[in-house]
Amino acid sequence: MPEYSAPLQDILFTIEEIGGLGELRALPAFEDAAPDLVAAVLEEAARFAGGVLSPLNAVGDRHGVRWSDGGEVATAPGFREAFDQFRANGWHAMPARPELGGQGLPVLVSTAVAEMWKSANLAFSLCQMLTLGAVEAIAHHGSAALKATYLPPLAEGRWTGTMNLTEPQAGSDLAALRARAVPAHDGKHGDHYRITGTKIFITWGEHDLAENIVHLVLARLPGAPEGVRGISLFLVPKFLPNADGSLGARNDLVCASVEHKLGIHASPTAVMGFGDREGAIGWLVGEPHQGLACMFTMMNHARLNVGLEGVAISERAYQQARAYARERVQGRTLTGSPAIIGHPDVRRMLLDMKARTEAQRALAYFAAGETDRAAAHTDAAQRARSQALVDLLIPIVKGWCTEGAQGVAGTAVQVHGGVGFIEETGAAQFVRDARITTIYEGTTGIQANDLVGRKVQRDGGAAVRALQERIAADAARLRAAGGELAPLGAALEGALAALADATGWLLGHGAAHPAEAAAGAVPFLHLTGTVAGGWLLARGAEAAARRIAEGEADRGFLSARIATARHFAAHELVHAGALRDVVLHGAATTLALADADF
Amino acid sequence: MPEYSAPLQDILFTIEEIGGLGELRALPAFEDAAPDLVAAVLEEAARFAGGVLSPLNAVGDRHGVRWSDGGEVATAPGFREAFDQFRANGWHAMPARPELGGQGLPVLVSTAVAEMWKSANLAFSLCQMLTLGAVEAIAHHGSAALKATYLPPLAEGRWTGTMNLTEPQAGSDLAALRARAVPAHDGKHGDHYRITGTKIFITWGEHDLAENIVHLVLARLPGAPEGVRGISLFLVPKFLPNADGSLGARNDLVCASVEHKLGIHASPTAVMGFGDREGAIGWLVGEPHQGLACMFTMMNHARLNVGLEGVAISERAYQQARAYARERVQGRTLTGSPAIIGHPDVRRMLLDMKARTEAQRALAYFAAGETDRAAAHTDAAQRARSQALVDLLIPIVKGWCTEGAQGVAGTAVQVHGGVGFIEETGAAQFVRDARITTIYEGTTGIQANDLVGRKVQRDGGAAVRALQERIAADAARLRAAGGELAPLGAALEGALAALADATGWLLGHGAAHPAEAAAGAVPFLHLTGTVAGGWLLARGAEAAARRIAEGEADRGFLSARIATARHFAAHELVHAGALRDVVLHGAATTLALADADF
Repeated sequence: MPEYSAPLQDILFTIEEIGGLGELRALPAFEDAAPDLVAAVLEEAARFAGGVLSPLNAVGDRHGVRWSDGGEVATAPGFREAFDQFRANGWHAMPARPELGGQGLPVLVSTAVAEMWKSANLAFSLCQMLTLGAVEAIAHHGSAALKATYLPPLAEGRWTGTMNLTEPQAGSDLAALRARAVPAHDGKHGDHYRITGTKIFITWGEHDLAENIVHLVLARLPGAPEGVRGISLFLVPKFLPNADGSLGARNDLVCASVEHKLGIHASPTAVMGFGDREGAIGWLVGEPHQGLACMFTMMNHARLNVGLEGVAISERAYQQARAYARERVQGRTLTGSPAIIGHPDVRRMLLDMKARTEAQRALAYFAAGETDRAAAHTDAAQRARSQALVDLLIPIVKGWCTEGAQGVAGTAVQVHGGVGFIEETGAAQFVRDARITTIYEGTTGIQANDLVGRKVQRDGGAAVRALQERIAADAARLRAAGGELAPLGAALEGALAALADATGWLLGHGAAHPAEAAAGAVPFLHLTGTVAGGWLLARGAEAAARRIAEGEADRGFLSARIATARHFAAHELVHAGALRDVVLHGAATTLALADADF
Repeated sequence: MPEYSAPLQDILFTIEEIGGLGELRALPAFEDAAPDLVAAVLEEAARFAGGVLSPLNAVGDRHGVRWSDGGEVATAPGFREAFDQFRANGWHAMPARPELGGQGLPVLVSTAVAEMWKSANLAFSLCQMLTLGAVEAIAHHGSAALKATYLPPLAEGRWTGTMNLTEPQAGSDLAALRARAVPAHDGKHGDHYRITGTKIFITWGEHDLAENIVHLVLARLPGAPEGVRGISLFLVPKFLPNADGSLGARNDLVCASVEHKLGIHASPTAVMGFGDREGAIGWLVGEPHQGLACMFTMMNHARLNVGLEGVAISERAYQQARAYARERVQGRTLTGSPAIIGHPDVRRMLLDMKARTEAQRALAYFAAGETDRAAAHTDAAQRARSQALVDLLIPIVKGWCTEGAQGVAGTAVQVHGGVGFIEETGAAQFVRDARITTIYEGTTGIQANDLVGRKVQRDGGAAVRALQERIAADAARLRAAGGELAPLGAALEGALAALADATGWLLGHGAAHPAEAAAGAVPFLHLTGTVAGGWLLARGAEAAARRIAEGEADRGFLSARIATARHFAAHELVHAGALRDVVLHGAATTLALADADF
């Protein structure tokens, strides 16, 4: 099976033309993000991803992780060495804030780097992602003492972090959470708590890559209110650090087992037991009962990252299918190529995959660029506009990119024919790995309800209409440009009208009928993602046309960007009207049946 | 995980109202298929499927098959006992012709029974399916001596059969086939041949369920023409039978290995080596160089059966998701139900699954009923019309039902949330098992090219237009009926107009531009399947309304049939216009890119 080869040309194009890196460089916060530096970082990351992480992807899938009776978890052969190297080369800390060893590059750039880790080895990449999430939570909400003790080793990757949310009865519904924290003051550990409870689905909850594992655990204080307003966040390390930073006693927590999963086999998914003996020692992070708010700090970052997993798996699956289609000879083709890439239906599958992957990447990078503007733009009004746009886009990036990855990964198997069904080929792993991405960090249904309820209805449609105005202006300009761009503008205008109808319905009828709005939420998410993806590909096509006009050398690549945008318009945007109709008219039957008649 | 429970009410409804069992009973060939008998057969099959085969489904998935060095293959625990019982109860022979121990029931009924085996345990069901395929090939094309020796034990299931087509360089393209057969006449075995070559992807190619395995092998005779016109079919048994039917010497063939696959783990997929020593002894089936024609005898039957696998997996996946959604409590729902089935988006997923499953079943059973008419109608003109319709429908049943199963199986995991990703839950197996169904017995692309080229263009659109006229007449009647049926008629008319446009384009522009037609073939297959599925559900809704008017007791079930048909119309038929646009306008970009620019 071919190793991952980072699509550097596409990534650089998307960073510049869709994410707007040039504009970001004009901001004081990012003035060091010079083109040469960015290109060098991306090239180095590409080398590490392709050379070190990618070869371990199938190894990790086959070998999985091994849990042993004492609660230890051994990772697959080569993972420990790769993680050491990842850390030694500074990749672990790279996206962290500069005072913690990070490079201070825009999120846009670290997003591109993260895409590579995820394409090369999704299971491996999760450990860093979770750890940097813990860093952010502690940095925002932790006490000075917790920051001093935990941030440096976590950012560096000497220690790793986890998020302990889910319990058997509390998955999507954290209100049902039961883990408990009781205040304790025995002097030795300061004002601490004793934590008890069982947590499940803890990614990288136990492993052998790092000296210590720092668990962020949601639990209830005595007398806490019911529901989500009674949840607090605690930091609970595997080993209790001594004052000098060295590791002290083992805390009262244990990995009770690891799950046997469909995919991401190399990533341990732990069942964690806290406090089976005297109660695990932990410290409060943030205010009492504000645990959920502390978690929300990381939510946009985490959801952008999981959306990016959809991009990354799509890219890798596409690469493998393309390589096979270029090499496999079978039957006489209708287009002249001797290999099966010459069969029109194989071409259709490959272009569908390529177009979806590029649209997903465009959407994720666009959201990443807006994240940078929201954080660091010099104009406060622009910061606010960008933040509103990011908040609107995040559930779409998460939901649409991961749902899209299911189709792309499945098509990659299909391009291989019977060989695709054989595990050694490697294509099947992408189907298996992709399957979790629409579920964890909030299912697609939860993203869609967030989109419809919190992001569209709550502000009366202000953010979504502002986005639609931008799209309308771009579409009109494209249509006026003529040539190859005009049909893109026209297709976009048609799809945008459908989105406007659906938005109007959600703000009117849907606001008065919440169950109907909820029934149409996922179709609305698909519609919004399709229009936004088509829009950004069209903007990319416009940029490609400009570069061609300016005489840029690689016309093949630039023309392909335009053709791919047109393919997306002809094959995906064309469904916008039907998606609108499902939003507007689909709820009646969804809500019609009695439970017993399913 | 819940065991499979056959949806007998849905199956009986579909047999009667969509397959037209009542009409078939009026034919002399099927006058014994009394309602009581059919119901009794289906109830017994349901019991066997749910009680014996279903509990082995997860066992087989976990255990797989074990290949040992001598080329033996051990099946999973319990499979041998279940197969003995399956055979002893007469289920193996049931669909065979009566003179071989079959029951002489319509294909429509044996299709319903087969659906149950496939839902309960897809891997198990393949052994019978392949064996009965071999029975048909030998019955149609074998010599009297071959028939006498091989048909009784194969039909009964004492011996099992296989199809040996694929070679590493010859998958979809059988023209590239290299296995060889050389005439030999040493007296002892009559006019036989020595077969040499390697075959791959041989389903149930080696196992421990039966005394003997009879391989049907495609190979070339000396001096045979190149390509598919030089392929002959040979019968090559694992053990050479003696004159008295007892088993003699081991033939020169060996199972060199079994594949490590994404799914259907309990079904051995063998690499078969023929003639490593002196050449495997085999006998010609049919005329020299007519091997492909002999295979085509079984093609409609085999493709209908694989399409049915899509139905069966969809049904099973839906059942499991429904059971979980009725039981799992998580969050406050908007519709009153305490369990997650009350969340509108979960309802939407369940209804999407239910509607697709019913539409797939309707299409498969409709094709099965037409198969019976084509074989046994007393009117020759009707036989011809039915055969033309079957030939048109088969690639749609195969392609559309199996593609649909991918989405349904994936949605079943999604309904489970994180638990769905854990293998022990059982939902993930359906995703893995389903993945092969769009590939084997001809990929979706091959079905679509068959549909467009051989079934639509070759007869100038006669068969597809005859179908469209039936749909148009039904749609007009439904629209005129008013009430709940009118919107079904209107939706059907809209979708039918799109199908008519696409058909016209294929017969006109597409006939002159074969690469463009091929680029639109799969979207056309989806369009045809969607319209045909929506049509048959609408006919079912009409029948349900009639039964309600007649005062039939189970109004909940009958009303749900109507609501489900409307759901399909509102969520699936609504995409017909976009699919038409993809057929008409999608080829330009599909064919635009140079190979290097992918």
